[in-house]
Amino acid sequence: MGMTMSEKILAQAAGKASAKAGDILWVKVDKAMMDDVLGPRVEIAEKLKELNVGVWDKDKIVVISDHYTPPANATQAAIVKFTRDWCSAYGVDNYYEFVGPCHQIMVEKGHVLPGQIIVGTDSHTCMYGALGSFSTGIGSTEMLGVLVTGEIWLKVPETVKVEWSGNLPKGTMAKDLVLKTIGKVGHVGATYKAIEYVGNTIENMIMDERMAITNMAVEMGAKAGLIPVDNITLEYLKERNINQNFDFLKSDKEAHFCDELRFNAEELEPVAACPHEVDNVTEIKNIEGTKIDQAYIGSCTGGRYNDLLMAAKVLEGKKIAKGIRLLVSPSSKDIWDRCAKDGILQKLSDAGAVILSPTCGVCLGLHSGTIAPGEVCISSTNRNFIGRMGSADSQIYLASPISVAAAAIEGKIADPRKYL
Amino acid sequence: MGMTMSEKILAQAAGKASAKAGDILWVKVDKAMMDDVLGPRVEIAEKLKELNVGVWDKDKIVVISDHYTPPANATQAAIVKFTRDWCSAYGVDNYYEFVGPCHQIMVEKGHVLPGQIIVGTDSHTCMYGALGSFSTGIGSTEMLGVLVTGEIWLKVPETVKVEWSGNLPKGTMAKDLVLKTIGKVGHVGATYKAIEYVGNTIENMIMDERMAITNMAVEMGAKAGLIPVDNITLEYLKERNINQNFDFLKSDKEAHFCDELRFNAEELEPVAACPHEVDNVTEIKNIEGTKIDQAYIGSCTGGRYNDLLMAAKVLEGKKIAKGIRLLVSPSSKDIWDRCAKDGILQKLSDAGAVILSPTCGVCLGLHSGTIAPGEVCISSTNRNFIGRMGSADSQIYLASPISVAAAAIEGKIADPRKYL
Repeated sequence: MGMTMSEKILAQAAGKASAKAGDILWVKVDKAMMDDVLGPRVEIAEKLKELNVGVWDKDKIVVISDHYTPPANATQAAIVKFTRDWCSAYGVDNYYEFVGPCHQIMVEKGHVLPGQIIVGTDSHTCMYGALGSFSTGIGSTEMLGVLVTGEIWLKVPETVKVEWSGNLPKGTMAKDLVLKTIGKVGHVGATYKAIEYVGNTIENMIMDERMAITNMAVEMGAKAGLIPVDNITLEYLKERNINQNFDFLKSDKEAHFCDELRFNAEELEPVAACPHEVDNVTEIKNIEGTKIDQAYIGSCTGGRYNDLLMAAKVLEGKKIAKGIRLLVSPSSKDIWDRCAKDGILQKLSDAGAVILSPTCGVCLGLHSGTIAPGEVCISSTNRNFIGRMGSADSQIYLASPISVAAAAIEGKIADPRKYL
Repeated sequence: MGMTMSEKILAQAAGKASAKAGDILWVKVDKAMMDDVLGPRVEIAEKLKELNVGVWDKDKIVVISDHYTPPANATQAAIVKFTRDWCSAYGVDNYYEFVGPCHQIMVEKGHVLPGQIIVGTDSHTCMYGALGSFSTGIGSTEMLGVLVTGEIWLKVPETVKVEWSGNLPKGTMAKDLVLKTIGKVGHVGATYKAIEYVGNTIENMIMDERMAITNMAVEMGAKAGLIPVDNITLEYLKERNINQNFDFLKSDKEAHFCDELRFNAEELEPVAACPHEVDNVTEIKNIEGTKIDQAYIGSCTGGRYNDLLMAAKVLEGKKIAKGIRLLVSPSSKDIWDRCAKDGILQKLSDAGAVILSPTCGVCLGLHSGTIAPGEVCISSTNRNFIGRMGSADSQIYLASPISVAAAAIEGKIADPRKYL
């Protein structure tokens, strides 16, 4: 019997010839990622001192201050300083700050490779499966164990196969595809499972778009989200000066899937997740005209180069509606730079967008664009829980960057196809 | 006997042929500016309702949400929403938000004209004197009176004449000139006086630089800071489509000055205000090597086009020191746009700067780059009081944008002349 991608990766990391769903394995971790929220400051620094041990391999640790940058108060600033100083004390050279959401930095700086096991102290760590790694979010206590031993136990998850076929119609993006999937599976529908995305819709998709999909696996409760390794994966790595040859890792034909879902991309329309659950998904046409106060493009899910490029296509030569604001935070400093050089930031700004520095802040209401009681925000981010972006009395709609851009033009939720 | 600029403006606004220092006059206000901190929400909205009156002239009121944008929490967001809604309710069309510090918006959008009386709920309202207006900061209660009556009583201030002669040497900017002045006068040395800047150093100065000077009049306790109207003033207004012909307003030769200070610009060196007072000024050479954690270029004092242009000249082709951060917040969206189009933002970013959206937040530690306990910041802003930019246990040095840029390169306070 064949193996799924997850089974293959986990077996190898456990030093075994094979593995199957349900196995509990001790696996070697290739990279441990920490952010500033649940990184060194929470238990880890103190306990490491108490244990009087160092870290297992400082070169396999990556730390990124992103949630609290740029700091909104002295407490946040002190956390960032603590994180920075801890890295310095432990010789962790892979430290980044003020350059954007950790997940984008991880892939951009070449810290994610196909077939690797990567754990991180942020739930959207599952994103790296877009590059064929098995990656998942863990808590600080588990991270402490990883930092000391370089290992973690994992139960091999069952896999849900999600197949998308056909071309994405004009006006839809990967975000629509993943929201549609989540709407179908439900927010606990894939608890502790891996979700593997296959089919020619996925095969034809650039890496920016693939990452928007695997990033949100956790929104169905999944342990990991994966996409088979192919030439697009290798091309993406080469652009980051990673010229190794990786196998085209994928599930065997005979692999066992606990569930298989099939979608026809050609039937996809622009969709949105309505307040207050990510699986509360409906077609944009059903909520057109809903008044908004803020539109946001950014985060580890929805602020990559292609997202800003597409949003700029919608907004070029237009102006956002009076009385609302459009905030744009590129997902990394590199993306900021590329978008600046290619004139994308200027097009967005000319339309009335406020260009923020790369940050996690807006997505989870930490700073840089928090929303007020009674306000409505449409956002290209990954969560619309009550109070996620500010006041508990606000409302969040999740949609693609082009749907966000279209809403910004009209001041209310609008069909992006009109503007393409 | 002749009159000073202030006496002339105040006399005219009071409908009198003449006025002299010490007179108490009821004057007509040309523009009332409110920000989000001490604007409608503090007393004003409630009391206006209680009084059951409207505003005297909605077209003479300008409201700018700048301190709390982009909001760092739901409370700040609610204040901005309150401010926005108040403007809407009172028909105040001159409402701006998310586009940068109020004072820059006031001059940029043509709300400041020579000879006008302008009051604002922010202490740096004195900046508009660079365009030959009499402008000053007032509290919310006084603003309430202005909103209802359109008038305010003012004691005509005595005037200190500050004359700067000669060319500014390479490596110095208006910021060095004003800090040197403040160092001499002291932080209470001009309490309730007007400061009038004259001399060929000032006459040869572009408006961006002039505003950096008058902005900081209040740091000597002054009621207003003024610069005579000349062709540079008119040119600046024309660029904003204000083609009126204004008199070359200046003090009469026979005017009485309570004090006259003379400085030789040729002797000026790069200076900084050391913690924790703006008048604690010394030459950069005396503090070279002081380690910094953050460098900041921005605010209503130090983030204009020329500031970013000059900083980019220092930073072009260089990288900021490892372990420190350079944050840059252009003083307005228009400046952001101009700097983007001219490649200035890219040069700064290429050197490692993080480009923030236009905001007051960093300057007074409200958000977007607050500093931690023990940290040191060098900043092109206007105040270095204890805790101003974050922790009460941090330190702030004020210096010109090029001195800030030089410090960013070295990670410690450095002489900018090396890099020009």
